[in-house]
Amino acid sequence: MNRTASPFRTPQQKEEARTAKRFAVLQAAVEMFNTRGFHATSLDDVAKYLGISKPTIYHYLGNKDNVLLECVKIGLEQLLEAATTARAQPGRGIDRLEAFLERYAQINMDHFGRCVIRTPEETISPDNLPTYRALKRKIDVAMRDLIEEGIEDGSIAPVDPKYLAFALAGALNWPARWHSPDGEYEPAILARKLVKILAAGFRPR
Amino acid sequence: MNRTASPFRTPQQKEEARTAKRFAVLQAAVEMFNTRGFHATSLDDVAKYLGISKPTIYHYLGNKDNVLLECVKIGLEQLLEAATTARAQPGRGIDRLEAFLERYAQINMDHFGRCVIRTPEETISPDNLPTYRALKRKIDVAMRDLIEEGIEDGSIAPVDPKYLAFALAGALNWPARWHSPDGEYEPAILARKLVKILAAGFRPR
Repeated sequence: MNRTASPFRTPQQKEEARTAKRFAVLQAAVEMFNTRGFHATSLDDVAKYLGISKPTIYHYLGNKDNVLLECVKIGLEQLLEAATTARAQPGRGIDRLEAFLERYAQINMDHFGRCVIRTPEETISPDNLPTYRALKRKIDVAMRDLIEEGIEDGSIAPVDPKYLAFALAGALNWPARWHSPDGEYEPAILARKLVKILAAGFRPR
Repeated sequence: MNRTASPFRTPQQKEEARTAKRFAVLQAAVEMFNTRGFHATSLDDVAKYLGISKPTIYHYLGNKDNVLLECVKIGLEQLLEAATTARAQPGRGIDRLEAFLERYAQINMDHFGRCVIRTPEETISPDNLPTYRALKRKIDVAMRDLIEEGIEDGSIAPVDPKYLAFALAGALNWPARWHSPDGEYEPAILARKLVKILAAGFRPR
């Protein structure tokens, strides 16, 4: 019997469909959160946009607080993956840091990264705060580690890694507030120019 | 007759009392907006905190959207004044820019500046957007002008002023999101360290 011809889905097909549906909800939600703001967006709006019912969203993702957490988690995991990829690269510390920063800036101009930056901590529900803070902390640590490795191999000028990380993160988070995906600045180019300007400050003289 | 002994207030005394009352409302409101968020704060909360009635707030400041606009305007005007003061200083362009940036960072860690940074544009009511945008634009222009003057006198390394302004503003706006007035970082010291790190990037080599 040919399995693909069966009208019954395999467990794997069911899981894939579930993942695709969850992701479609998150994609619709994140764009509304980013443009209208979290408080001005209702799950009714998201459901209507997708032509589904609100209980369907509850079924796949739970309430609006959880939808927000999942959006923010995707962005934070992309940032974390960028750090892991950069840290696995060979070469000098400064090159790994710059590679990470460029990707970091680009993610922050993309939907889920924008949501990370545009969501103030007080908007995350108290139940979800520990998950959110743990992920954020990992990214802060990864950035500081990359800076410290560059200082150790002499490719980054001696500096307090904590304050350099504050300055770099702020400079590369901010486009999430003003940059428009349809605007005049191409994310890859803006990311490159910002990192180049910042790198001028941490290269040894 | 001794004027100060009169039970009737002079027009000037009335105006001063009015200004003091308006400011007291704005001070209470800005702290609640900053900690709870604009949407989670009601004018009832602000009135209760001050022991006054909500109509009293309406009388002095209008609705919640206008209270927010007034808070943001105070912050933006402080930033603008910092630019005007820095631009009037003698000396090299880089020194004027650094003086401005340090003050800019400090204002952004103070209540009204924090409100400027923590308020996304979509939270400003459509009626108030033109006023808000016009003030923001003046600060952007002032920062770019300071950069251009430094490039012209050779004290700042050649750079696209627009992108340098993006990087500097982002790095110095961001503390408004994470810095706590009661936290471990003293605003003046944090401002100084961030500006020093950033200045390493725009000094000529």
